[in-house]
Amino acid sequence: MWPPIALAMLTLSLIGIGCGDPAQLTRAAVDAINAADLILIPRKGTAKSDLADLRRTICAGVLTNKTTRIAEFDLPVRDATEADYRKGVDDWHDAVAAIWSQTIAGHLEDEGKVALLIWGDPSLYDSSLRIARRLDPLPTIEVVPGITSIQALCAAHALPLNDIGEPFLVTTGRRLREGGWPQGVDTVVVMLDGGTAFQSLDPAGLHIWWGAYLGMPDQILMSGALAELGARIAAVREEARERHGWIMDSYIIKRRR
Amino acid sequence: MWPPIALAMLTLSLIGIGCGDPAQLTRAAVDAINAADLILIPRKGTAKSDLADLRRTICAGVLTNKTTRIAEFDLPVRDATEADYRKGVDDWHDAVAAIWSQTIAGHLEDEGKVALLIWGDPSLYDSSLRIARRLDPLPTIEVVPGITSIQALCAAHALPLNDIGEPFLVTTGRRLREGGWPQGVDTVVVMLDGGTAFQSLDPAGLHIWWGAYLGMPDQILMSGALAELGARIAAVREEARERHGWIMDSYIIKRRR
Repeated sequence: MWPPIALAMLTLSLIGIGCGDPAQLTRAAVDAINAADLILIPRKGTAKSDLADLRRTICAGVLTNKTTRIAEFDLPVRDATEADYRKGVDDWHDAVAAIWSQTIAGHLEDEGKVALLIWGDPSLYDSSLRIARRLDPLPTIEVVPGITSIQALCAAHALPLNDIGEPFLVTTGRRLREGGWPQGVDTVVVMLDGGTAFQSLDPAGLHIWWGAYLGMPDQILMSGALAELGARIAAVREEARERHGWIMDSYIIKRRR
Repeated sequence: MWPPIALAMLTLSLIGIGCGDPAQLTRAAVDAINAADLILIPRKGTAKSDLADLRRTICAGVLTNKTTRIAEFDLPVRDATEADYRKGVDDWHDAVAAIWSQTIAGHLEDEGKVALLIWGDPSLYDSSLRIARRLDPLPTIEVVPGITSIQALCAAHALPLNDIGEPFLVTTGRRLREGGWPQGVDTVVVMLDGGTAFQSLDPAGLHIWWGAYLGMPDQILMSGALAELGARIAAVREEARERHGWIMDSYIIKRRR
C-alpha cells in the first residue's frame, strides 16, 4: 500500500509534548527531540494551524542538535462520511502510515532516528502508536510520556481527580451522549467531545470543571454546578470556537450524593 | 489543632516530579522548584527511603536558587488499625497538615513560597491537595502536573491506554478485589494495590501489562495473558519487594472479546 522501504534500522520516537504550554515539556522529551535525525511535523490545515505552530515553536526553542532535520507533511483527512466509525479510523491510519513512510524515505536512508511530537501523551486517545505499528518493516518504537489535558485541567483547577480511594472513568463525548451517566463511578473525565455532551445529562447533583486552550495564553476555566453552568459553558465555548477558528477543551464531571 | 500561624501570604506549590526518573521532570517543575523559598521533604522511614532520596537527588540536580532552603520532616504514619478507612485517612490528613504548618513556621515568617515535590501528579491518588486545603489560613495553591505511573507504564510497554473511541476505568486494588471486573469497560488501570488483586479475577480473556519501579534503574516489566502470567508476576513481585524492602508497581488489564 505504501513503498516497501526498509525501516528495520529505524527508531521512531513518539514524544509527548504536553497540551499547549512549552513549559510542560519533560527533560526526557527535550533529550529525545535532540536525539532525532528527522522530526516529522504534520500540517492539519489552517483551522488547527496553532498546533503545527506549537510544534515549530517547541523545536525552535529546544533543538540544539544542528544535524536534526525537520520535515513537514500534510496530514490526510479522515473520511467523516464513512458510516462505520472503526473502518473510517482504520483507513485513515493506513493513509497516515503511508505519508509517514514517504516522508521518512525522502529524508533518510534505511536507518536513523525519527521523532514525532505528540500533543498530550502518545498513550492517551492518540493514534500514533497504532499508526506506527502499520509501518513495515516495523521500526523500534520509543514512547516519551507527556502531560495530558486531563492533568492540565486538574492542575488549573487545583482539583484532585479521584475521590479518596474511589475509581474514575475516562470516556468520550460520544459515549456520554449515547449511554448517559456511567454505572459505578462518581467521577467522569470526558475526552474527544466535539461538542457539549454534558448537556445531554440530567444535571441534578453534578458539578463540572471545564477548560479550553489549557496551558495556552487564551486558557478559559469554568467550574460549578452543571445545572447553573451548563448553558453558560456552551455559550462561552461556541464564542471562543468562532473567534479562534478551533477549540480544544475537556472537562471532568463529579456526582455529589 | 495546629499552631494558628498566618499563612495568608503563603503560596504552596505542589510539584509533580514523575515517578522515579528525574528526566520526567517538566520545565515548569524545574522552574517551580527554583521559585521556592522553602522545599519540604517528607521522610517516610527506612522502608521507602528511596523516595526521600529521589527528592534530594532532584533538588541537588536542578536547584540553582541559592536562597532556597530545604526542610525535612518525619511524615506521620496513618493508623492502619482504624476500622473506618475514611476516618483513618481524615485523621492522617489532619496530622500531616499540622506537621506542614509547624515546619513552615520554623523556617518562614508569614509569607513566602513553599514547595512540595509530589510523586507522580498531585491530582492523581495523592493526598497533598486535600491536606493543603486544611491549612488555616488557606495558602494560595499552585499545582504543577507530573508524569504518572500510568503514563510511565504505558510508555514502557508502548501500549495505547484506551482502545479506539473506548472508555477506561482507573480504580484501586481494593475495589477490584471487592467488586470484580467493572461493568461497561474493557480496560482497567489498577492503582494503590498493595498486593496482587489481579489474582482475584477470572483470567479468561484478560491480558495484563505490569510494571514495578517504573523509570528507575531496577524497572521490571511483564505482559501477557493473565492466565499464564498471573502467578509469575506475583512471584516476581514478592521477590523484588523482599530484595528492595519496598515495591511500587501498577498494572493495566484489558479484556479481549
